[in-house]
Amino acid sequence: MTVDDPTLAAADHRHAVTGSGKPACLLVDWGSTRLRLWLVDDRLAVLDRESGPQGQASLTPQDYEPLLTGYLDRHGLSYDLPIAICGMAGALAGWREAPYLDCPATLMTLADHAIPVSDRLPRCAILPGVARRDDTHPDAMRGEETQCLGAHVGGVGDGWLCLPGTHSKWVRLQDGMVQHFSTYMTGDLYAALGRHGALAGLMAPDGADHDLMAAHLAEFDAMVATALADEGGSWDRLFALRAAVVTGQRDGAATAARLSGLLIGAEIAHIRRSLDGVVSIIGDPSLAALYARGCDSAGINHTILDAEAVTIAGLGSAARRLADIPTGT
Amino acid sequence: MTVDDPTLAAADHRHAVTGSGKPACLLVDWGSTRLRLWLVDDRLAVLDRESGPQGQASLTPQDYEPLLTGYLDRHGLSYDLPIAICGMAGALAGWREAPYLDCPATLMTLADHAIPVSDRLPRCAILPGVARRDDTHPDAMRGEETQCLGAHVGGVGDGWLCLPGTHSKWVRLQDGMVQHFSTYMTGDLYAALGRHGALAGLMAPDGADHDLMAAHLAEFDAMVATALADEGGSWDRLFALRAAVVTGQRDGAATAARLSGLLIGAEIAHIRRSLDGVVSIIGDPSLAALYARGCDSAGINHTILDAEAVTIAGLGSAARRLADIPTGT
Repeated sequence: MTVDDPTLAAADHRHAVTGSGKPACLLVDWGSTRLRLWLVDDRLAVLDRESGPQGQASLTPQDYEPLLTGYLDRHGLSYDLPIAICGMAGALAGWREAPYLDCPATLMTLADHAIPVSDRLPRCAILPGVARRDDTHPDAMRGEETQCLGAHVGGVGDGWLCLPGTHSKWVRLQDGMVQHFSTYMTGDLYAALGRHGALAGLMAPDGADHDLMAAHLAEFDAMVATALADEGGSWDRLFALRAAVVTGQRDGAATAARLSGLLIGAEIAHIRRSLDGVVSIIGDPSLAALYARGCDSAGINHTILDAEAVTIAGLGSAARRLADIPTGT
Repeated sequence: MTVDDPTLAAADHRHAVTGSGKPACLLVDWGSTRLRLWLVDDRLAVLDRESGPQGQASLTPQDYEPLLTGYLDRHGLSYDLPIAICGMAGALAGWREAPYLDCPATLMTLADHAIPVSDRLPRCAILPGVARRDDTHPDAMRGEETQCLGAHVGGVGDGWLCLPGTHSKWVRLQDGMVQHFSTYMTGDLYAALGRHGALAGLMAPDGADHDLMAAHLAEFDAMVATALADEGGSWDRLFALRAAVVTGQRDGAATAARLSGLLIGAEIAHIRRSLDGVVSIIGDPSLAALYARGCDSAGINHTILDAEAVTIAGLGSAARRLADIPTGT
């Protein structure tokens, strides 16, 4: 994608921007396992970034506020600074619940449903997630909706977004709304099978080692092709990854790449019947690259967006609406 | 199934038998996580049974012999007693490797390929497993082939066997041979997802609690039906189990039953295109009952065989051939 929207361009720290250079708001992506913060100016140029392991899963409700006030104190910032938060901090087991919006959900109005969290931080709020309250197939997201907003304000039009991760999301954007989405537990399955069961002994203890993966891309591709040929019905292929090693037909070293190919391939095989047009992939660069390879194998046109830029653009758009910050243009 | 074959009947401790009543051989099913022994007479009537957690995964090669000699010593038995072992003791990482027979494999000749293991136990041997050395879909079993032998000598003719467990096997028997088989990692997946990832918090720490499962059989059945309707392509349903809870549509208490139904349903949906005739289910009674429910939902005719009787019949048949023991008839 060519980034020709000033908001997205400003959000990308690799581009020179002409903003005030003064802190305008703090943007926070508070996930299950990671906390990421960006201090930005009125053009969303990044003045400072921080990242740490203080994810929702390791925190109690009392732990959140001191992490933010600590950051503000260290940087000599006012507690009155606008702060926009997305992600699992808004889950029932997070800081304070920000109830889901029902799908279809209008992205530009996410901020109108944000939940304030603390009297000490009067302009700090958590954005809601989006849920499909479908009796036969419920689904939910927290955080990805803000990335969708970022892609939308960055100029991505109607079509599909792919947000790979622990819980991969495939989102249909239309008229500025999340019209539909589906979650695949691919990353979670990969991690669970890497730590427990018959495949665990064949894999690196913490799942994907990127160098290892890079050395076995041909095996990854072969398993994607297998899953696509199976049309995703590859449940019986999981044990075959181990059987290939115990029968001496394959070296165990490639098992991580083969499992990754099988699971990503099954995901793509399943979703591809719904897709049309170009898919925009938003995620960790190495994971996005694997999904791009999978899309290539499936004949799906795709483009990779910078995940950090999209997150900043989405949080920044919400922060401006929350705090009535002029766009600086 | 009516057990009308004398071998199977003799192996079943609930039937009165007329054997010598003297120890004729020791039968051992040495799995990954469990060790099970049966001391039997010449008609395979069980004189003593033991079971313990000394599975292959927790042992080094030096640990095996003392476990057997300890048993023999405690019962005042000669080290010359015939001992037939099946299962993971014969894996590369077990006591001594008993190389796989290639599929199709003749069951009655399993014993001819058994591997002796110890000079101190001259009539003790490990039965081989069976492997599919198929480049695109390798597969392997250790232990289930001996249960297939037991079903065969017990009068089960040509057709399909289902052996549910950590690695569920579906086996096509024909002319006394394992003609074909497929493994599904269903039990392993269930356990991995119960201990790690987004579903883990919703489930009992050690997976299936049978009382809990029994209380939610309607939810189990509903998810089997879902997987069957999806024709097994249910990868996107896994996260829906969690989403149903976080969106408030379902109580988390039934999640274990719903996951079990989804995974068993996906397995049955995938294999059913290959099946014909009546499927004989051999496994832990509570797990066999769940597979039987799944088969009912899929319109698959089935019968449940007593897993212990089948194992004893298979090991006993092999032990007789190994040791040239008269059948006592």
